[in-house]
Amino acid sequence: MKKIEIESIGTIHTPFNDIEGMPIQTIGAKDIPGEIHVKDKFKEGLKDLNGFSYINILYNFHKINEYDLTVTPFLDNKKRGIFATRSPKRPNHIGSSIVKIDKIEDNIIYILNVDILDGTPLIDIKPYVPHLWEETIEKEDLKIGWFKDKHQNAKTQKSDDRFLSLSQLKKN
Amino acid sequence: MKKIEIESIGTIHTPFNDIEGMPIQTIGAKDIPGEIHVKDKFKEGLKDLNGFSYINILYNFHKINEYDLTVTPFLDNKKRGIFATRSPKRPNHIGSSIVKIDKIEDNIIYILNVDILDGTPLIDIKPYVPHLWEETIEKEDLKIGWFKDKHQNAKTQKSDDRFLSLSQLKKN
Repeated sequence: MKKIEIESIGTIHTPFNDIEGMPIQTIGAKDIPGEIHVKDKFKEGLKDLNGFSYINILYNFHKINEYDLTVTPFLDNKKRGIFATRSPKRPNHIGSSIVKIDKIEDNIIYILNVDILDGTPLIDIKPYVPHLWEETIEKEDLKIGWFKDKHQNAKTQKSDDRFLSLSQLKKN
Repeated sequence: MKKIEIESIGTIHTPFNDIEGMPIQTIGAKDIPGEIHVKDKFKEGLKDLNGFSYINILYNFHKINEYDLTVTPFLDNKKRGIFATRSPKRPNHIGSSIVKIDKIEDNIIYILNVDILDGTPLIDIKPYVPHLWEETIEKEDLKIGWFKDKHQNAKTQKSDDRFLSLSQLKKN
């Protein structure tokens, strides 16, 4: 089995030291600040990024060390297929958030709307340019599966420790 | 340096056998069909996904084996910081596309709006639920950097071999 090797390109610093009690989506994290510290060797790649309002960041759910193919998500009380959820307990622990750029100074991106754990390893930064796909979305008929009538709760719902492994919970 | 190990969860099949001449974004790939073949061991994770219109897929730019911190993107004629572009020649070769679900049968997701190379390893599938972040986007003031007045060209612009390494080009 060929593995794909990923190297962290930096670290995300946020006010959230604990998985419990965090916002579960950016809609519940409005104006919460954080800092992305990009490693010096990748700093040159940030050129031109200060012209953008938002970035889509990919990161490693570094506190999750197992996966389940069905999970009960924070917004529901039924088991759902992992790929129909945004749960961190997925095969390949990669998260994705769209955050606002406050300012960029040297290798630090100051960001807002942060729903991410402190110390999270950064994997990628992509400019947020919805013009590149928005026209392909048929908004009238947009189906959002089990999120229907539940997504509003993402504004206030906080996370808990349900996605941590037993061994991690024992350590706490 | 701790590496993050990623395992492909399936393969994306598309009409594009060659990097040259492909659409560069989904907006240039309207209705182009593809198939995602999810490995049997992960099939159970697809449960409930048939209730969604679109998915955000993450995948490995498997034909790219180097990175540059500045590149001249397809839509521009100036060198830009790699993180201000969606070029595949980035540290960690991960791509992200929002594609439409046509139908799901067993472990195969039939998709539309495909801007991806045939044989691409799949890394993740996330349901597309813009309700979870759209409210955080201040659309009036949205700045899209160097894409301004250029993003329209993504409808017709095709890719070429500029992001392949010299050794790859010599092989051809």
